[in-house]
Amino acid sequence: MEGIFITILDLTGTFVFAISGIRLASGKNIDWFGAYIIGLATAIGGGTTRDVLLDVTPFWMLDGKYFLTTGVALLATLLFKNKIFRLGNTLFLFDAIGLGLFTIVGISKSLEAQLPFWVCIVMGAITGSVGGLIRDVLLNEVPLLLRRDIYALACVTGGVVYFMCLQLNFSTSITELTAALVVILVRVVAMKFHIHLPVLNSLKNPYSDKTDKS
Amino acid sequence: MEGIFITILDLTGTFVFAISGIRLASGKNIDWFGAYIIGLATAIGGGTTRDVLLDVTPFWMLDGKYFLTTGVALLATLLFKNKIFRLGNTLFLFDAIGLGLFTIVGISKSLEAQLPFWVCIVMGAITGSVGGLIRDVLLNEVPLLLRRDIYALACVTGGVVYFMCLQLNFSTSITELTAALVVILVRVVAMKFHIHLPVLNSLKNPYSDKTDKS
Amino acid sequence: MEGIFITILDLTGTFVFAISGIRLASGKNIDWFGAYIIGLATAIGGGTTRDVLLDVTPFWMLDGKYFLTTGVALLATLLFKNKIFRLGNTLFLFDAIGLGLFTIVGISKSLEAQLPFWVCIVMGAITGSVGGLIRDVLLNEVPLLLRRDIYALACVTGGVVYFMCLQLNFSTSITELTAALVVILVRVVAMKFHIHLPVLNSLKNPYSDKTDKS
Repeated sequence: MEGIFITILDLTGTFVFAISGIRLASGKNIDWFGAYIIGLATAIGGGTTRDVLLDVTPFWMLDGKYFLTTGVALLATLLFKNKIFRLGNTLFLFDAIGLGLFTIVGISKSLEAQLPFWVCIVMGAITGSVGGLIRDVLLNEVPLLLRRDIYALACVTGGVVYFMCLQLNFSTSITELTAALVVILVRVVAMKFHIHLPVLNSLKNPYSDKTDKS
Repeated sequence: MEGIFITILDLTGTFVFAISGIRLASGKNIDWFGAYIIGLATAIGGGTTRDVLLDVTPFWMLDGKYFLTTGVALLATLLFKNKIFRLGNTLFLFDAIGLGLFTIVGISKSLEAQLPFWVCIVMGAITGSVGGLIRDVLLNEVPLLLRRDIYALACVTGGVVYFMCLQLNFSTSITELTAALVVILVRVVAMKFHIHLPVLNSLKNPYSDKTDKS
Repeated sequence: MEGIFITILDLTGTFVFAISGIRLASGKNIDWFGAYIIGLATAIGGGTTRDVLLDVTPFWMLDGKYFLTTGVALLATLLFKNKIFRLGNTLFLFDAIGLGLFTIVGISKSLEAQLPFWVCIVMGAITGSVGGLIRDVLLNEVPLLLRRDIYALACVTGGVVYFMCLQLNFSTSITELTAALVVILVRVVAMKFHIHLPVLNSLKNPYSDKTDKS
């Protein structure tokens, strides 16, 4: 029963991340197959990076459902584009749910690999946010992750809560649920109330300077 | 005998992919060594990504000829730049041949690793096209792969044909030859007759929207 | 004693590479946490790429000091921004020292993995320069590495000297010291006297051409 629930959340996260990639690809003169690749990179990029760093087989090689789900996301976008692209707030909520779930998956897989807690938190953040980062690099934009809102920081906060729950001897299920909810909550509250970290200002454009590291 | 033939095709593919990288690097205020790095990334980027995902030693570490061939490509470009840059159609044909060969190499290596057929097809497409993708990311362009023509899709088509041939009990040599020819043919025909997939249009610029995934 | 010395150099390299990332992130509408991520990518990106290619556990997973040092670098930047950003020449010298050290670390780790000498030299150059490359890709710039000065080439020169010293039966310490000094010297001299490799010019913009590899 719990397995079915997790599978549904996992595929929902994949679907919504893929939609977010396909949506940002639109209007960039990218064809359908290119949009599929962007959707795929967004949905599986974080988990693949985590698995390469953990030196395990990338998760999508063991199960075709991630490629299929991305295909369904592309199909849905092509069929119901106007509706899906206007689903702003609903999409955002699903995206936050996907972020929470992916973060927990990343932490669990790292715990299995017996890594120290802070590496697990980093892996959770990588699983949740590197897909969106690869998407933006491919679309030739400065990653939204770096520019805006509380995103990777929501993953880190959820990760810290995860290990606080473990310290308090919470069961695995409760720990995972609590941490995922924290990720979602931090993300939603930050977005709703426009909470941002301060921006780092410069004195001048450092790329026109001749004395820094290249 | 067959081994020599494959080596020649392999180095031809490497050479032409390197030329394509060096050529696109020109006019971007990049120096000779930078051009070598771009050529190298184009020629070995796909196979390296495949080998990291398959968790095997990257192929170029085991044999210096890929670095040497890229060096020869740089030298040839410096010596005969005007001629090589004007070789548009001939270069394109060699590039298509390289694509076909790299795709087959990717599929074969994945079969050896006993991966399911659809993962092998994905690995073939990665081997053929990720080099060009890395090249474009380094040169700060939206990857041509995403924008234009039938490229990664040619690899996928060749991959499907590969496994159809295996199902029909064709020998390995015939299977590989057929699949490579299909890749090349799809690529050449698509280019010749300007066959494109439809472009994904947008309602507005999604990067200026505040409710999508970052 | 030697161990403490190496640790100090290692952390100095990490610190200065992180500063270089944070500095280039400023003025790009990036928030504090984004700046931390850029600093981290600059400081550990090269070594992580090396470790993934060598198929060993990424070095930063085994020791939290790289993440901490990057945090200190962010804090220092926030507190003393005007001073640090004006430290042009001093920063540059530290950056060159970091480059020399990182190159030697890359070569040593590759030698332990019993790779051929030229692969070790490549790994040294990857360790020294890929961090800056990832930084520039994330900040959506053509990598400085490709555009300017002697950078990766300094690593390669140091690597060649490393193996010349080994051939001459120098001790490991002397070999490492000599090679690191050569990297630093090549970098400083090239910068001081504005020594550049020639730039690769083009006939026209190749990205508007329809016949090249995509």
